[in-house]
Amino acid sequence: MTTQRLVLSLDAMGGDRAPAVVVAGIQLALMDHPGVHYLLYGDELQLGPLLEEVPAVAAVCTLRHTTERVSNEDKPSHTLRQGRKTSMWLAIQAVKDGEASGVVSAGNTGALMAMAKLMLRTLPGISRPAIATILPSRHGKVVMLDLGANSDCNAQNLVEFAIMGEAFARTVLGLATPSVGLLNIGAEDMKGNEAVRTASTLLKTSPLLIKFHGFVEGDDIGAGTVDVVVTDGFTGNIALKTAEGTAQLYASFLREAFGGSLLARLGYLLARPALTRVRNRTDPRRYNGAMLLGLNGVCVKSHGGTDKVGFANAIGVAASLVTHGFNDRIKQEFSELQTVGISPMVVVGS
Amino acid sequence: MTTQRLVLSLDAMGGDRAPAVVVAGIQLALMDHPGVHYLLYGDELQLGPLLEEVPAVAAVCTLRHTTERVSNEDKPSHTLRQGRKTSMWLAIQAVKDGEASGVVSAGNTGALMAMAKLMLRTLPGISRPAIATILPSRHGKVVMLDLGANSDCNAQNLVEFAIMGEAFARTVLGLATPSVGLLNIGAEDMKGNEAVRTASTLLKTSPLLIKFHGFVEGDDIGAGTVDVVVTDGFTGNIALKTAEGTAQLYASFLREAFGGSLLARLGYLLARPALTRVRNRTDPRRYNGAMLLGLNGVCVKSHGGTDKVGFANAIGVAASLVTHGFNDRIKQEFSELQTVGISPMVVVGS
Repeated sequence: MTTQRLVLSLDAMGGDRAPAVVVAGIQLALMDHPGVHYLLYGDELQLGPLLEEVPAVAAVCTLRHTTERVSNEDKPSHTLRQGRKTSMWLAIQAVKDGEASGVVSAGNTGALMAMAKLMLRTLPGISRPAIATILPSRHGKVVMLDLGANSDCNAQNLVEFAIMGEAFARTVLGLATPSVGLLNIGAEDMKGNEAVRTASTLLKTSPLLIKFHGFVEGDDIGAGTVDVVVTDGFTGNIALKTAEGTAQLYASFLREAFGGSLLARLGYLLARPALTRVRNRTDPRRYNGAMLLGLNGVCVKSHGGTDKVGFANAIGVAASLVTHGFNDRIKQEFSELQTVGISPMVVVGS
Repeated sequence: MTTQRLVLSLDAMGGDRAPAVVVAGIQLALMDHPGVHYLLYGDELQLGPLLEEVPAVAAVCTLRHTTERVSNEDKPSHTLRQGRKTSMWLAIQAVKDGEASGVVSAGNTGALMAMAKLMLRTLPGISRPAIATILPSRHGKVVMLDLGANSDCNAQNLVEFAIMGEAFARTVLGLATPSVGLLNIGAEDMKGNEAVRTASTLLKTSPLLIKFHGFVEGDDIGAGTVDVVVTDGFTGNIALKTAEGTAQLYASFLREAFGGSLLARLGYLLARPALTRVRNRTDPRRYNGAMLLGLNGVCVKSHGGTDKVGFANAIGVAASLVTHGFNDRIKQEFSELQTVGISPMVVVGS
């Protein structure tokens, strides 16, 4: 529940189903977050009629017209030069200018990251921001990052992700001392590539007060072996989508199995509440809304293919991060680290 | 069903539950593969008593004693120098010497790959072998490689994997023109790292008769978008284990949900045959047994933590690859490629 009034800016043209999914998402979010006002950036020719249909949404929106939008095919570097009138750019700028407390976009991830880095800038001590999300695990929830912001990562990037992810788990999940694992292809020291091996050594020997578990493997994500799973953006993105795909596959096998015999269908009817509970616990839409960690501002990336339920969830993530004052906490913690002479940069050397 | 008599050599000391799981695995495999004889490499002090307990297994085994074994902590390079008396080395050597048609090990993957490369050598035109397996998908089965043999891969490696994986899908899955996808973090040309972008260009422009789909994402594995998913060993290993972990998580959620109310438990009883069918379709043990593709010899890697059901399946994979004459087919195809002037080396340049 959002109690205080806050302003979020939305890239109304980002994602596969924009702008309809954005308006429908706001409508769904009205109940859980009644105090939010939205700055809606996009084409008024498309947005106008959509808003007219839902007066309750129109009442909480300020429409800011632009015809330009970032496409999924646009290179991030191109959008930085040519994209200053796009709905994505303008939505981020609203946060930079202090008009909005956070921004949500379902558009091109690379462009969103590039623009957000340029306009919002990274926090002191962080060289590259990362995308983080919360996933279901056997023991509750697990934070995972990076999910696609950085295709190639070195050891220093991974150490920074570990620090940010740990702070995220403490602040948003409310854990006292979250454990952190580095995703690898085995638990032994010599496994994996240079970056993960060096990052592991750094995290083991650093003076940081992080509960570092060591290497974890792909199946440790769902097992909940650690509270925070750290990896590079290439591997993280593929692991996340593989998990989603496997959950969908499992669900489709279940549907087929229960459609089989009359007995199975009767069993389905009796078991439906239980199955619905499972579906809800594994519904990717419930976990939609990944945060760009390490920036001076709340910036949430929605899955490009999500529906209104997923987009409403992304709005909820942004609202809750603003309400928790997450970025102020991270900033304070990094500054405390530096006060006592511990900086991620120092930790990982030059 | 294996009809002709064939000999497999087994590393009886590899994996978390060796040697017990190896003997129990043979026992389970007796029914489906009655004609197989096993050369069992390992410690007779441990294996002797196990074999005494199961005369039917003892009857199809020749025990070859060695006290040395490769541990999971051993570096591959170390095992090449110091590991020539290990159960893993001797089991591979049996294939090299023509005593056995194939080898199965649940031990250290890196060491297995290094030893197999050294002793069995790679096929002409292949610079680095890869680990491939078959996974369930919505449309049947999907071949995926590499699953951990090569942590760092360049574009040429990925192209070779594509060629081998495609041949594997034709031979073992019996598909006429299997489609091949390259795992990436997006479908667009500029997404991902240098290696996948270059490999994609090469596969698109090459004269190879491969049905190249382009980039696929993590969720395309379970969706069955393509028949063959190609990736580097770091990403592939993590994606595979993430899929396994997600399936386990889903199964545990189901167990919890069905244990909830009396009605849910009644529903479970009625739905049990359907649920068992789903469990069987997604059981990682049914897919245990990954093949090292690109070598002059059948070499199957079992999951280190599998049980007797999984190990029996790995034995079945090796038996079936030998029976299909898979390696001869691959060799023939590569030689045909070279006859018409197409070589993977030529395709990808120098």
